[in-house]
Amino acid sequence: MRYGVLGTGEVGRTLAGKLVELGHEVTLGSRAKDNPVALEWAAGKGDRARAGTFAEAAAAAEVVVNAVGGPVALDALSAAGAEHLDGKVLVDVCNPLAFVDGEARLDPVESDSVAERIQRAFPHARVVKTLNTVNVQVMVDPDRVPGAHNLFVSGDDAAAKEQVTALLGELGWPAERVVDLGGLRTARATEMYLLLWFTMYRNSGSADFNIEVRRAG
Amino acid sequence: MRYGVLGTGEVGRTLAGKLVELGHEVTLGSRAKDNPVALEWAAGKGDRARAGTFAEAAAAAEVVVNAVGGPVALDALSAAGAEHLDGKVLVDVCNPLAFVDGEARLDPVESDSVAERIQRAFPHARVVKTLNTVNVQVMVDPDRVPGAHNLFVSGDDAAAKEQVTALLGELGWPAERVVDLGGLRTARATEMYLLLWFTMYRNSGSADFNIEVRRAG
Repeated sequence: MRYGVLGTGEVGRTLAGKLVELGHEVTLGSRAKDNPVALEWAAGKGDRARAGTFAEAAAAAEVVVNAVGGPVALDALSAAGAEHLDGKVLVDVCNPLAFVDGEARLDPVESDSVAERIQRAFPHARVVKTLNTVNVQVMVDPDRVPGAHNLFVSGDDAAAKEQVTALLGELGWPAERVVDLGGLRTARATEMYLLLWFTMYRNSGSADFNIEVRRAG
Repeated sequence: MRYGVLGTGEVGRTLAGKLVELGHEVTLGSRAKDNPVALEWAAGKGDRARAGTFAEAAAAAEVVVNAVGGPVALDALSAAGAEHLDGKVLVDVCNPLAFVDGEARLDPVESDSVAERIQRAFPHARVVKTLNTVNVQVMVDPDRVPGAHNLFVSGDDAAAKEQVTALLGELGWPAERVVDLGGLRTARATEMYLLLWFTMYRNSGSADFNIEVRRAG
């Protein structure tokens, strides 16, 4: 599969690297064509890895991964171009996280989500929210945390969610550990969970954790 | 210990009943002195159970449990009376849940929490937020759900949190499964988790679940 991963931060680079390892062709997209971080990433990852602009990464891709921060997601996707997103699965892994006076704050929150904003701005993209409830190291290596801990998917396109669930399987997440929350509106639930995640992260100093949903019977 | 449980809904009645079973003296408080639900509850629970107004329940108590709905919590506590709350541990188990057009909505959210509102309104109460992340049947019988699943506590008074953690132990929650999130501001995190809880509840049709925090190493 050909992936375009938007965002050269740790999330984008790590996800893109894992996808290359899995045998996919990956373009790591950034705002500027000559982004040194993206060029260095591509240089170290072999033939299947490329660096490019957001637009080049999206244009080359069958599946686009939004791995920029929530506050700049719409800007990055606008730079990628609606024409390069239309009809494609768009995996949104970001969170609406900002820091105000050293405190984690979310915007939008509760009455909206980044995922829904993206879907409204790009109505022909097939947006699936997932992976945003764990640190990137856990995203690509779930076994570093013990137990049958869970991921969540939200999206309005059932076939797109199925395809993303298969991708999560490649990353090491068995389908039975992927909880389909429902339509894209349910992305509000996992985006809002971020504050609990962040509080536990801050208190423990470690991001190597996740939650497992335990059920009676 | 003498408990005053405010609220005659399922949460209040079930928590109050469990506290009676554990040997405590409990007054179930409601808005009206002759609330038939409260009177019936007390009639069936033996000598240690009484029904009364919010004020009577709080006045008689060493520890007060706020088990009314988030939207009416401040009203109920005002009726209970600041003079009956001052210096006491106030266990806040409510959530800021409301339904708008059939959808679960939270108010306040993110910039504030019910727990903080209560603390501001009653600065001499020793507010501890807990139990709000599980259904009441799980609150009083955690073993109905398998695994070492967790509860959270938030509060500004360390001694009050310690006392509440001991109470949780009586309910069946070992101290090592109670995660101290920090100050009362962290109640925002568990109140915001409600949307994820509610989404999983709605999808599965069962409230018999909880989350277990799994950590590496």
